Amino acid sequence: MEGSTFARDFHSFLLKSQKEILTELEERSQEKFVHEEWVRDAGGVGLSTSIRDNTIFERAGVNVSAVWGKLPPEAQSLSGWESVPKDLNFYATGISLVLHPQNPFAPTVHANYRYFELLDLSGTSQWWFGGGADLSPAYVIEEDSVDFHTHLKALCERHGVLEYHKAKKTCDDYFWLSHRDEARGVGGIFFDRLQESSSSKSKSEILGFMQDAASSFPRLYCPILDRRVSTTFNDRHQIWQRLRRGRYVEFNLIHDRGTHFGLKTRGRTKSILMSLPRNAMWDDDHVIAEGSLEDETMQVLRAPREWVK
Amino acid sequence: MEGSTFARDFHSFLLKSQKEILTELEERSQEKFVHEEWVRDAGGVGLSTSIRDNTIFERAGVNVSAVWGKLPPEAQSLSGWESVPKDLNFYATGISLVLHPQNPFAPTVHANYRYFELLDLSGTSQWWFGGGADLSPAYVIEEDSVDFHTHLKALCERHGVLEYHKAKKTCDDYFWLSHRDEARGVGGIFFDRLQESSSSKSKSEILGFMQDAASSFPRLYCPILDRRVSTTFNDRHQIWQRLRRGRYVEFNLIHDRGTHFGLKTRGRTKSILMSLPRNAMWDDDHVIAEGSLEDETMQVLRAPREWVK
Repeated sequence: MEGSTFARDFHSFLLKSQKEILTELEERSQEKFVHEEWVRDAGGVGLSTSIRDNTIFERAGVNVSAVWGKLPPEAQSLSGWESVPKDLNFYATGISLVLHPQNPFAPTVHANYRYFELLDLSGTSQWWFGGGADLSPAYVIEEDSVDFHTHLKALCERHGVLEYHKAKKTCDDYFWLSHRDEARGVGGIFFDRLQESSSSKSKSEILGFMQDAASSFPRLYCPILDRRVSTTFNDRHQIWQRLRRGRYVEFNLIHDRGTHFGLKTRGRTKSILMSLPRNAMWDDDHVIAEGSLEDETMQVLRAPREWVK
Repeated sequence: MEGSTFARDFHSFLLKSQKEILTELEERSQEKFVHEEWVRDAGGVGLSTSIRDNTIFERAGVNVSAVWGKLPPEAQSLSGWESVPKDLNFYATGISLVLHPQNPFAPTVHANYRYFELLDLSGTSQWWFGGGADLSPAYVIEEDSVDFHTHLKALCERHGVLEYHKAKKTCDDYFWLSHRDEARGVGGIFFDRLQESSSSKSKSEILGFMQDAASSFPRLYCPILDRRVSTTFNDRHQIWQRLRRGRYVEFNLIHDRGTHFGLKTRGRTKSILMSLPRNAMWDDDHVIAEGSLEDETMQVLRAPREWVK
């Protein structure tokens, strides 16, 4: 059993979104993303697209996948269920993208929208949506953070499916590097287990929100990218960018549930770790001058702000 | 209660070893390692020493610490015990070093020797030693691997405490990147829970082995370093070094139990993550030419070898 009709339709929708997002990104990169199709032996297909060493993007990937089969025991505990009846089939489909620009003033962005269902022989038994989008600038620029959050708040308000401030808080909590006491970036929205009971909206209303979230991604991010890609920068800025990307790596490999879920369910390592930057640095003795741009950024990352009322 | 006399003596011994190792390393770096003493509020002291951006070492750290107190619940499951009586005090002391040279032909090395005990009011209730040393070259050079393993085998044979081939296998198994299907490096020895029952040697004989292991480190590694630090290299070699260091980061953040134990017991993040390199890269589309040095290295990393009979 390869998922419900609903699930397969959502997968098709995500493939269409991926195409649209790539069109926007390729207009900027002036270079095609490399496409790779893959098959998961135990059940699943994926279309991973990526670019590297490009004038605009240091490394970027936009992936859509659908995987299905018996839920592996390791995934069971990670799924958050207390107990899952055996012999249930799962189907998970999602779009996941991470863009690491070259310019240290252009922020890294991550977005991910997914659907998950467990099926028994009589049809769907449980389902939910999850996802979010968050911005990780090396240098926090207020205008960009405000725009990003304003867009996400409007998205939430268009549908009434998700409460922006709640999803913003969930995002801040999730992308928190507890071992560093700092945020990965300036946040965005993040949500999991979005379903009828949690949103008091119908499945088709939730679907509408998810589709809007995925397809509006270029309007969320590209204006920010466009105004930062040509900023002049020097070695100092690039080193700082790489140090912040080191933190990005730490978050993804130590804390990220998606990464762990993917690696434990023997997902495709290359797709899962496409979120990593091309270059990262570590230097715990890096000196940050008081009042510098780096200092201002760290102040924001240590105490997440409300960017929109 | 801050550990048994035995434990505190071993801690003092490790501080002496640290000094001797630093003398050897500083002779090469021609620059002093920066010393930082730290205190753990819940119980513990450390002396972290490090160097970065040096002509010989890109990043290197040699740390000694002793931490004690009540065993945190998270640490309990990580410790491997089925069940630990409450209200036991633990004491853990160890030396841990990671050296990442600048030259892509000079291998990264990691070594770590530690002692752990659980004390109840009547004295020691359980104790063991653990540790090991392993080599992670960006370019596998047979002579270096053979020398490294020959030295470790001789060390094991001098004391009869640890069976080299067993500890070599444990090392290969431990430093395996399962999500990549490749080894982190060419291995070495690795052991845990070394105690009277597992070695059929007395505690003082095991101590003798541990002391020899720690104090012979310069003879294990420095000859290899010395013959590689001046090797000519170009951008291609440096990129490969950084890609392999990306794998090093992956191992440490995804798989390493020590890192997880440290972060979960609220250890000092800076000391725990000193194992990370200064520079790392990711590029899953990096092309490896057949028969190249990189290809030869990957063949060894995919199928760990017996370096000494």
